[in-house]
Amino acid sequence: MALSPNDFPRRANDKLRYADTDRQGHVNNAHFATFLETGRVEVLYDPHDPLTGEGAEFVVAKMTVEFRGEVHWPGSVVIGTGIKAIGTSSVTVSQAVFQDDRCVATGETVIVQIDTGTRSSRPLPDRARTRLSELLLDAE
Amino acid sequence: MALSPNDFPRRANDKLRYADTDRQGHVNNAHFATFLETGRVEVLYDPHDPLTGEGAEFVVAKMTVEFRGEVHWPGSVVIGTGIKAIGTSSVTVSQAVFQDDRCVATGETVIVQIDTGTRSSRPLPDRARTRLSELLLDAE
Amino acid sequence: MALSPNDFPRRANDKLRYADTDRQGHVNNAHFATFLETGRVEVLYDPHDPLTGEGAEFVVAKMTVEFRGEVHWPGSVVIGTGIKAIGTSSVTVSQAVFQDDRCVATGETVIVQIDTGTRSSRPLPDRARTRLSELLLDAE
Amino acid sequence: MALSPNDFPRRANDKLRYADTDRQGHVNNAHFATFLETGRVEVLYDPHDPLTGEGAEFVVAKMTVEFRGEVHWPGSVVIGTGIKAIGTSSVTVSQAVFQDDRCVATGETVIVQIDTGTRSSRPLPDRARTRLSELLLDAE
Repeated sequence: MALSPNDFPRRANDKLRYADTDRQGHVNNAHFATFLETGRVEVLYDPHDPLTGEGAEFVVAKMTVEFRGEVHWPGSVVIGTGIKAIGTSSVTVSQAVFQDDRCVATGETVIVQIDTGTRSSRPLPDRARTRLSELLLDAE
Repeated sequence: MALSPNDFPRRANDKLRYADTDRQGHVNNAHFATFLETGRVEVLYDPHDPLTGEGAEFVVAKMTVEFRGEVHWPGSVVIGTGIKAIGTSSVTVSQAVFQDDRCVATGETVIVQIDTGTRSSRPLPDRARTRLSELLLDAE
Repeated sequence: MALSPNDFPRRANDKLRYADTDRQGHVNNAHFATFLETGRVEVLYDPHDPLTGEGAEFVVAKMTVEFRGEVHWPGSVVIGTGIKAIGTSSVTVSQAVFQDDRCVATGETVIVQIDTGTRSSRPLPDRARTRLSELLLDAE
Repeated sequence: MALSPNDFPRRANDKLRYADTDRQGHVNNAHFATFLETGRVEVLYDPHDPLTGEGAEFVVAKMTVEFRGEVHWPGSVVIGTGIKAIGTSSVTVSQAVFQDDRCVATGETVIVQIDTGTRSSRPLPDRARTRLSELLLDAE
């Protein structure tokens, strides 16, 4: 069945920019990584209530994008975001990008909480664990 | 064993730009997709001798990036590129990104040749198949 | 007196992206050129009713940006756009960028209509001249 | 007389990226601001010997770009950079961008040293003044 933005607990959007296009006439595929980032940071980096512990930050460990269609300027994209799995210090984020309700890409990103000073991984605080659990997607 | 640029038949480079950095102080991870693109297009889009047939172009179907280290401005990155597999109308490209000989990311990208008009897949021409074979990486 | 979005006949917006920030923590100044572009193209490139004549396109001849404040992620910017002057084949666009109603930049851009084939300037069609006149800002 | 990279005391380069192009087929004009930044930071932000005083940084106050030609991927650009004027807390940087020795743009940027904490302007240190003087362009 076709994916819909409503299959995800959180939805964000990005306005397409003319500069996002490339000489092939469509939005350059590297920007899909940015669209996924937009959806991700709205879940992970609430400036008023950050998920990371003090002195910690998130870095991306792995990202997979499946391109299902082209994105064309002008317009905007909607990014659906949910949590697929929660590890000790990592979170697997599952996402999809939509233009006019058409799914143009799906993405899966593993992010890891690291200590800002040492740059090594650090277990997620309980608070993060609780809040991320509320965004868990049903196992398929 | 640690990866080296010399493990790949082709090497390209990208100059880091101040604007590539983000508020975390390092190069934003979305730019890794651009670095992979730089390595890929130097193999696939030689303007004097393109690999695609007439009226055809390449689009990215899937991209996986594993982030192994942070990239810091200033400087440049080297992108090693080889071919992992050749399908009927698709090519799997295997790559790694290096800063100062340190591997900061590996990537695998599946690209598909499509008809520029119909936007549907089209078998690779024999010439492309031959040239891409010369860039095949040894199976691990 | 302080500038307001309402001082301009047209208003566009851009969603700020995490990747727009740089290592100084604010939105990188090169993106201000993109924000101006967003406001400009919504006036000049309506895909259903383009201002350029057939076989013609707009290119930027000169751009001046005055930076009045820093832009900080997250959020969005509003871009006010009006026409300052209409020449034979050129248009002078006057703009301002706002974050939370605070003017963070003003910009002036001279664009020229060129022939897509020959890349040389071509007089604006009457229809463009009429429509651009409706967006003229009062002379100060 | 035509401008040449040798008219400037400092030269930097940027590798063009496929993603720099837009749907008009050429390098998007907003990237010219990035090319100017590349030339500027190599003069102003030497990580081993920064020009700014401690607790200070540079911000851009005004930027003017005149576009003289289109830039086409693939290839690279050379950015020539010199100093036009030195004020109390500001520096006016004069630049030109070249592709294959053809001048595609000229730019003038006013940067101001600000206090990182208060974000207000702060006079340039003598050391910066001396070093910037060595890069002064002859008055025309």
